[in-house]
Amino acid sequence: MVEEKFKPAKRVAGQRQDVWSIINEAAAASPKQPIVNMGQGFFGYNPPQFILDAAKSALDRVECNQYSPTKGRPRLKKAIADAYSPYFGRELNPETEVTITTGANEGMLSAFMGFIEPGDEVIVFEPFFDQYLSNIEMPGGIIKYVPMSPPKDGAERTSSAANWSIDWDVLEKSFNEKTKMIVINTPHNPVGKVFSKEELQRIGDLCLKHDVLILSDEVYDRLYYVPFTRMATLSPELAKITITVGSAGKNFYATGWRVGYLIGPPELIKYVAAAHTRICFSSVSPLQEAAAIGFEQADKEGFWDSAVKEMQGKIDRFCQVFDELGVAYSIPEGGYFVLANFSKVKLPDDYPFPGHVANRPRDFKLAWFMIQELGVAAIPPTEFYTDANTHLAEDWMRFAVCKNDNILDDAKERLRGLKKYMVT
Amino acid sequence: MVEEKFKPAKRVAGQRQDVWSIINEAAAASPKQPIVNMGQGFFGYNPPQFILDAAKSALDRVECNQYSPTKGRPRLKKAIADAYSPYFGRELNPETEVTITTGANEGMLSAFMGFIEPGDEVIVFEPFFDQYLSNIEMPGGIIKYVPMSPPKDGAERTSSAANWSIDWDVLEKSFNEKTKMIVINTPHNPVGKVFSKEELQRIGDLCLKHDVLILSDEVYDRLYYVPFTRMATLSPELAKITITVGSAGKNFYATGWRVGYLIGPPELIKYVAAAHTRICFSSVSPLQEAAAIGFEQADKEGFWDSAVKEMQGKIDRFCQVFDELGVAYSIPEGGYFVLANFSKVKLPDDYPFPGHVANRPRDFKLAWFMIQELGVAAIPPTEFYTDANTHLAEDWMRFAVCKNDNILDDAKERLRGLKKYMVT
Ligand SMILES: Cc1ncc(COP(=O)(O)O)c(C=O)c1O
Ligand SMILES: Cc1ncc(COP(=O)(O)O)c(C=O)c1O
Repeated sequence: MVEEKFKPAKRVAGQRQDVWSIINEAAAASPKQPIVNMGQGFFGYNPPQFILDAAKSALDRVECNQYSPTKGRPRLKKAIADAYSPYFGRELNPETEVTITTGANEGMLSAFMGFIEPGDEVIVFEPFFDQYLSNIEMPGGIIKYVPMSPPKDGAERTSSAANWSIDWDVLEKSFNEKTKMIVINTPHNPVGKVFSKEELQRIGDLCLKHDVLILSDEVYDRLYYVPFTRMATLSPELAKITITVGSAGKNFYATGWRVGYLIGPPELIKYVAAAHTRICFSSVSPLQEAAAIGFEQADKEGFWDSAVKEMQGKIDRFCQVFDELGVAYSIPEGGYFVLANFSKVKLPDDYPFPGHVANRPRDFKLAWFMIQELGVAAIPPTEFYTDANTHLAEDWMRFAVCKNDNILDDAKERLRGLKKYMVT
Repeated sequence: MVEEKFKPAKRVAGQRQDVWSIINEAAAASPKQPIVNMGQGFFGYNPPQFILDAAKSALDRVECNQYSPTKGRPRLKKAIADAYSPYFGRELNPETEVTITTGANEGMLSAFMGFIEPGDEVIVFEPFFDQYLSNIEMPGGIIKYVPMSPPKDGAERTSSAANWSIDWDVLEKSFNEKTKMIVINTPHNPVGKVFSKEELQRIGDLCLKHDVLILSDEVYDRLYYVPFTRMATLSPELAKITITVGSAGKNFYATGWRVGYLIGPPELIKYVAAAHTRICFSSVSPLQEAAAIGFEQADKEGFWDSAVKEMQGKIDRFCQVFDELGVAYSIPEGGYFVLANFSKVKLPDDYPFPGHVANRPRDFKLAWFMIQELGVAAIPPTEFYTDANTHLAEDWMRFAVCKNDNILDDAKERLRGLKKYMVT
């Protein structure tokens, strides 16, 4: 048989079914059609018109339809350098300090491919964005996990996502001479935490002490509801060891456009750009041009401010149902995910969970149950923890609120169906 | 210093300057501005209007702007399955036998990532498409090279690109128990050769005998001027071991769109799709939709036929200058590259070549000279050979003819300037 003769590489073989296919499968099988999908973090609405118009006019230009330079269209690199220079407090050089990638995702893979040799260690916080793991393992990296824990009273009391805390002891012990890189993510998916200046400084100091590179995944950098600090702006020393990851898809409500970017010192960007060239050659050209125009005009259009207001409004609108139900949640400081705690929901003892759900932590059962009984899809966050630490998150569920208000209202109405399962 | 502390991975460190930057640099430095650029293989004109219109209308649809499924938009997979089923002589299953990638390039990387373990060997013909090498090496593959040679009388006589020939002896000896995959490319870049049924059968038989996978890079599959055979269609046995690579960017004059696809048996596609998910997550969504409409409507629009006629016309139009000059060339059987032989051009003995060109084979000097003296950029093909075999190609130059006719005419006029350097 082909399967035997042509064995796949270990890096893709025989993985456990991932959360996305479990949830999609559950959604397809649910009697409650159509499902209200608050699972995956894509937007339920279009990019703003000025950016769509920019994309359409790019499509009329011959050079925008052909290969962009491998490091990205000059106009986009300049627009990003101009947009970020004020935050960095100095003029970023668009030619040497910015490079364009196929979404933030391939940008992070490029960073790992650019710097990780087999056996190098990379520190990752739990919960993690799941692509980090395969992306670190592809070049042969070894992952060291550092758990973040929910607030102690997270089951009873709604409070800021700031209260999710790093296990500093584990973090400090994770550094050793094999440590090459750490990945941080702020604003955080799925927690909604914006790392404080003090937390970033403490992480940064450890990295400086141990000569460790920082990959700062800041794809939600335009959506923060408390003051937001960028790792690379803390000090010139930290700027020298930090690669900042951004996503035009997240910024402009266009996750399907696959335009990401990396900002960092020339000595680092040079090699991640070289890796990117070997992975994708170049990234989608007309939508790079549209993203460039997006960055150029966003301030003038008042887009960034309205984006924050709009998303904050969606969070408030949606979370109201949790207040009503007495479900505690973490109030997001940034991004568009809400983690809510369902320890007070009692699942029926004899509920017929399929095998691949029954053998996963309680949050998977909660997710399955809510899809079948309420027609609301959300994501079980233990998928983003290692097995040893799933207990930290098994009562929580992640909701993506980047959806139209009528969808949020529909979800709320459906979630009210939980009342009869609540124990108090 | 950062450079020392944060060493890049070997896979991206310290490579010799590549042909693209040498040529671009030369072009920028040339006194003959603007340069006529027949170097890189991007189109000098836009995709057809019906496909541009499709892209624009996709941009108005919310779901087309958000993440596509990781394996691609269902409509595009179906359009490709429908378009290719007639060639394959059976109904391709769009869900299991087709997967969408970020250009053919990332598709090939996905195939290598899906199947190559460190130490596995992959056979590659010279001249090669340069991205193969880094893509094979990324998962730890070892490349075995098999040279193709120009026709013996290639310096004197224009003849079909069919006359470039495989070294069968080297090929047969390249197979061993570590051989996991072979890469073929037909129609071939840069040679312009369409592999004959007999050649493909002979390669295929070797692969069947040695249980070796075939990655058939057919990105120029809609541009052939002689009968074209697809490896996967030769026999059911070969279909089972072949992954066919396609490129909507090449098909639809939109190299910057980064939409590629892989066709193959479910047991193989499954793993390359898994690798793709880990590399890019998903590919550009609105342009997938446009490519779907492209495949759906191309026949009705008469696009494929007109594409062949148009490109054939460009080849004839351009090559006329070589006939005039007495420069022999290989008549392309497919694709849009022309290899011409400049052994009769005598470069001035004292010509001031910069160091990084002076130490490369003669074709690099020819390229530099033509950019400086004539203002025409073409690509030296020894870049696509290993050092041991550069002698095979050092008198040749590659011209991309996928440019507007006025550009081709301008190039011809400039190339007439070679007359005074010709020896006979
Ligand atoms: C934390 C985080 N990083 C990166 C990404 C990927 O971003 P992109 O769509 O630009 O690849 C996501 C997407 O959900 C994310 O949540
Ligand atoms: C032989 C060959 N394969 C693959 C590619 C890459 O195609 P894409 O632009 O779809 O990544 C090219 C581009 O020049 C090519 O010549």
